[in-house]
Amino acid sequence: MPTIKDIAKIAGTSVTSVSRVLNNRGYLSEELKSKVFQAMEELNYQPNEVARSLQKKQSQIIGLIVPDVAHPFFGELTAAIETYAFSQGYKLLVCNSKLDSAKEIEYLHMLRASQVDGIIMGSHTMDVKEYLLVKQPLVTIDRKISDDIPYICSDNYLGGGLAANELVEKGCLRLAYIGGNTELDLLAKKRYDGFRDVLAKKDVWHTCMQTNTNGFDLNEYKQLAENLFSTYSEIDGVFASSDLIAAFILKECHRLNKLVPNHVKIIGYDDVNMSSIVTPELTTVRQPISLLAQKSVELIIDQVKEKEISKETIFPVSLVKRQTT
Amino acid sequence: MPTIKDIAKIAGTSVTSVSRVLNNRGYLSEELKSKVFQAMEELNYQPNEVARSLQKKQSQIIGLIVPDVAHPFFGELTAAIETYAFSQGYKLLVCNSKLDSAKEIEYLHMLRASQVDGIIMGSHTMDVKEYLLVKQPLVTIDRKISDDIPYICSDNYLGGGLAANELVEKGCLRLAYIGGNTELDLLAKKRYDGFRDVLAKKDVWHTCMQTNTNGFDLNEYKQLAENLFSTYSEIDGVFASSDLIAAFILKECHRLNKLVPNHVKIIGYDDVNMSSIVTPELTTVRQPISLLAQKSVELIIDQVKEKEISKETIFPVSLVKRQTT
Repeated sequence: MPTIKDIAKIAGTSVTSVSRVLNNRGYLSEELKSKVFQAMEELNYQPNEVARSLQKKQSQIIGLIVPDVAHPFFGELTAAIETYAFSQGYKLLVCNSKLDSAKEIEYLHMLRASQVDGIIMGSHTMDVKEYLLVKQPLVTIDRKISDDIPYICSDNYLGGGLAANELVEKGCLRLAYIGGNTELDLLAKKRYDGFRDVLAKKDVWHTCMQTNTNGFDLNEYKQLAENLFSTYSEIDGVFASSDLIAAFILKECHRLNKLVPNHVKIIGYDDVNMSSIVTPELTTVRQPISLLAQKSVELIIDQVKEKEISKETIFPVSLVKRQTT
Repeated sequence: MPTIKDIAKIAGTSVTSVSRVLNNRGYLSEELKSKVFQAMEELNYQPNEVARSLQKKQSQIIGLIVPDVAHPFFGELTAAIETYAFSQGYKLLVCNSKLDSAKEIEYLHMLRASQVDGIIMGSHTMDVKEYLLVKQPLVTIDRKISDDIPYICSDNYLGGGLAANELVEKGCLRLAYIGGNTELDLLAKKRYDGFRDVLAKKDVWHTCMQTNTNGFDLNEYKQLAENLFSTYSEIDGVFASSDLIAAFILKECHRLNKLVPNHVKIIGYDDVNMSSIVTPELTTVRQPISLLAQKSVELIIDQVKEKEISKETIFPVSLVKRQTT
């Protein structure tokens, strides 16, 4: 039986290079791959699974669909996914769905028809039928679309509870939740469930405001923040489902001369960079963005390699106390 | 001579579909393309340039290299590039260089070896040699790396002058510029040149602080802001080369109980979303992000089509007066 050494000799390259080709590690030129594969054929070497999949001409490209890479959370998530994917030899095709179903469907067609090895879906579309037709490995973030497709998320329910506890402990009596539209069927809506359940136990009043299904419109966030305080002027605590929304609440408090945290306490979600740039710095529920990124890529690669994978991964969250509570 | 109608008939499809294939517009299935190309061959139809390039199996993928997609400016730029590229039938491969030359070079190798039709380089690397080896169409943003490679930027010099004028008009006497390292040889350093030249004419004192060459480190921005006021406590006006840096200056003013704009006036650059989310809202020099995005993609497509292109495109900027001046 031939060894890697034999292949290296025939291919006129080093054992390390052959091993890199067999394990698909680092940058591999087409020339090197072709020499190694020729040598393997000549020696009738039984390539392992990875080498075989390489010969199947994998693209080493992962497609990522997010609502908007300019949104702080999705920007940081995309950066982290790209960084980890690159370390594993993958490049990243990025699609901003902008919650435009037609664009998203067209993208999925292209991704399915062409050269991606897998798709990470971090989008908030209302239409998931098309995803069920995808043959490539798929991972969804913050959304469960079928029993077969693996999804990952942070512990949204726990995060909502942590926020409720903190606001009540700090003396708030009239609370508000502001977050995404529940019609979108995202797991993020559990942030509200956790918040509501803790408040019900403690018998504290609250109201709930939702973005429209189109989400991610900064003007809408501004409008929501204005509506909140004009409708409920006595609100003394707000839990927002993203740091970006929380920043708009903070801005509205400044405008109304409500002191934060004295008159109004605010908690965000995500812990993006922005949360510690605004003044006062936001208290927030921290999602482990780099772990989410790493796991989403691993789940694609494991599916490519036909490994067993877990269908559900829920990451723990923590409350980061800063200056708004 | 055969017409599009003849092709449609033979291919068993509509004239619109043939026209879409010939003009490479919208989503085109491999099946449709192959039927149309077969019909064209059968009829000996002389395909136009685009159809020919399609037959050359272009990937319809553009590679984009940016320092960090999580940075507000590059996040919004990436989103705008992706949106415009998609409208032109292109997908976007995104690479965060993180100013890591080794990673950037490895990326360029992959892009050159594989399937991208062109590369948009919005990176701040110190090492441009590798880019000169790229055979695909290339466009650089905010950096000129050779006489042959087209670049685009905003009118950095004018922007710096606008900022200086505004601060002096509003009564500032002791000014500071904080921006990227001039060793990086970016066109952005002209923001400082424009600022300095206006102040020299008006005989107003200023100091200049630079990030280290590694840039984009939020802790460094914080440190710079602290150093600025501990070294020059009498500073009453600051021009920052990005809104992100300006936000850190604003934060430091809050911490030191310096009122903005009463005690210190601040102007940023870019006009990213963040500039109107912080309180007070940032006065800033607006770059036309969507025009930059559109032009960068057009310059790639025009090169693919072997059209004449201009090597230099400088977009006008404007001062957006908000609450920090």
